Amino acid sequence: MNLLLLPRGSVDADGRAHVVGDAVAHVRRVLGKGVGDDLKVGEREGRIGRAVIESLDDHGLRLRCTLDADPPPKLPVTLVLALPRPPVLRRVLQHATTMGVGRIVLCNAARVEKSYWGSPALLPDEIDAQLRLGLEQGRDTVAPSIEQRPRLRPFVEDELAHAAIPRRWLADGDGRTPVPCDVREPSIVAIGPEGGWVDFERELFAAAGFTAVTLGVRPLRVETAVVAVLARLAV
Amino acid sequence: MNLLLLPRGSVDADGRAHVVGDAVAHVRRVLGKGVGDDLKVGEREGRIGRAVIESLDDHGLRLRCTLDADPPPKLPVTLVLALPRPPVLRRVLQHATTMGVGRIVLCNAARVEKSYWGSPALLPDEIDAQLRLGLEQGRDTVAPSIEQRPRLRPFVEDELAHAAIPRRWLADGDGRTPVPCDVREPSIVAIGPEGGWVDFERELFAAAGFTAVTLGVRPLRVETAVVAVLARLAV
Repeated sequence: MNLLLLPRGSVDADGRAHVVGDAVAHVRRVLGKGVGDDLKVGEREGRIGRAVIESLDDHGLRLRCTLDADPPPKLPVTLVLALPRPPVLRRVLQHATTMGVGRIVLCNAARVEKSYWGSPALLPDEIDAQLRLGLEQGRDTVAPSIEQRPRLRPFVEDELAHAAIPRRWLADGDGRTPVPCDVREPSIVAIGPEGGWVDFERELFAAAGFTAVTLGVRPLRVETAVVAVLARLAV
Repeated sequence: MNLLLLPRGSVDADGRAHVVGDAVAHVRRVLGKGVGDDLKVGEREGRIGRAVIESLDDHGLRLRCTLDADPPPKLPVTLVLALPRPPVLRRVLQHATTMGVGRIVLCNAARVEKSYWGSPALLPDEIDAQLRLGLEQGRDTVAPSIEQRPRLRPFVEDELAHAAIPRRWLADGDGRTPVPCDVREPSIVAIGPEGGWVDFERELFAAAGFTAVTLGVRPLRVETAVVAVLARLAV
C-alpha cells in the first residue's frame, strides 16, 4: 500500500478523517505507524496528500489530512478484455488500475467459458475491492470505469465501430507489427482470452477498424499481456 | 502449457521420446489429448516442432517427434533484479523466461530482506521448475541463465561497470525519461526491490554508467515492473 485510500466524503472541511476497518490494522502492523507519524493518503475520486496520525487504537484511526495535489492523469486507453477466469480477472483489474487505465470493458469471446459470467468476481463489491488495491498501489484515487458486454458482436459492430477514437488495436498472436509505443492520442486496445481470438472475431474487429498488433512470437498469459500492452502504449 | 518441454537428450535419432511424470496427466486431462493426436513439443536447449502420440497410459506417453524449427531468439537483455520475496521471485522467473530474457542476475539491495537469500525458492530445482513453466508458456526451449550476487557493491563496481554492454538503465521512480522502446542492441536493466533503490545504490549504478529511467509516476509492484520494462525494451 503506497497510499491510504479514504472513502469519498470522509475528509471534513478541517482535513480530519476517521478511518475504521482493515486499513487500521494495516497501518499499525504492516506500515508500523503510530501517533504523530505521517503517511500518504488520498480521498477516493479526489485529491492526494499526506496525513498525520492523531490517534490510533482498536476502534480506528484519526487523521489530520493535507490533500494538496491532484491524482495522476489517467492513461487515454480503453482496455477491451475478453473476460478471463476469475483469479486472473482479479489480478488484471488490480494491474490495469495501478497502471492508470481509464476504462475497462469486459467482453465475451468464443474461448471465454460461459461460467465466468456468473462468477462472484464480477459482483460490484468484489470488483471494487480489486480497484482499491490497484489505486493504493499506484497512488491514485480515481478508479477506471468497469463495463460488461456479454454479447461481443453488437458491442463491436454497434459500439466500437462507431467510437470517436481512431486508434484501435487488436492484440493478436497473428499480428505483424508490434504494439506501438508511447501513443498520446486516445486509443482502444482489445486483448483476447487464453488461446487467443478466433477467425470470426478477428474479422469482426478488423471490420470495426482494428489493426492486429503483436507482443512477439512468444504467447503470453493474459495478465502478462495486459501489463505488456499498457506499458508500451504509455507510462 | 503451449509446448510440451522434453528433457535434453530424450528424443532419439528416429524422433521417438518417452515421457513420464506430471506431464502425462497434463496432456491427458488438461489438454485432453489421446493416441493419434498431435501436440507442440520442444527439446530442452534444442529445437521445437510437433509430436504425434503413439501411446498414452498411466506409465507414460510415447511420442514420435518432428523437431524442425529453432526456438525463438532470446531478447538481448540482461535483467538485474534486487532479490524479491520468494513468491514474487517465482512469478518473475516465469514471466521473464516466457518473455525471452537471456540472463537474469539476482542481486542484493538495502531493501532486500536478508532472509530471502536463504529461501528454498533459490534452490536449483525450484528455480528450474519456474523456468520450465515459463518456457512451456512461451514456446521456447532455452532457459535464461540465473546468477546470484549477494554483494551488490562489488557486483556493480567490478562487473557491471566493466561489462561490454554500453546500454545500461536503472529503473527508478525518480528517473526522468521513460524506459526506452524497441532497443535492438544488448542492454542491461536493473530493477529495484519493493520500496525502490536507496540513494547510495542510485549513486553506485550511476557511477557504473547506468541512466535512471522511469515507468511513470505510479509505483508498480516488482512483477508488474519487470513485465513492463521488458515489454518496452523488446517484443
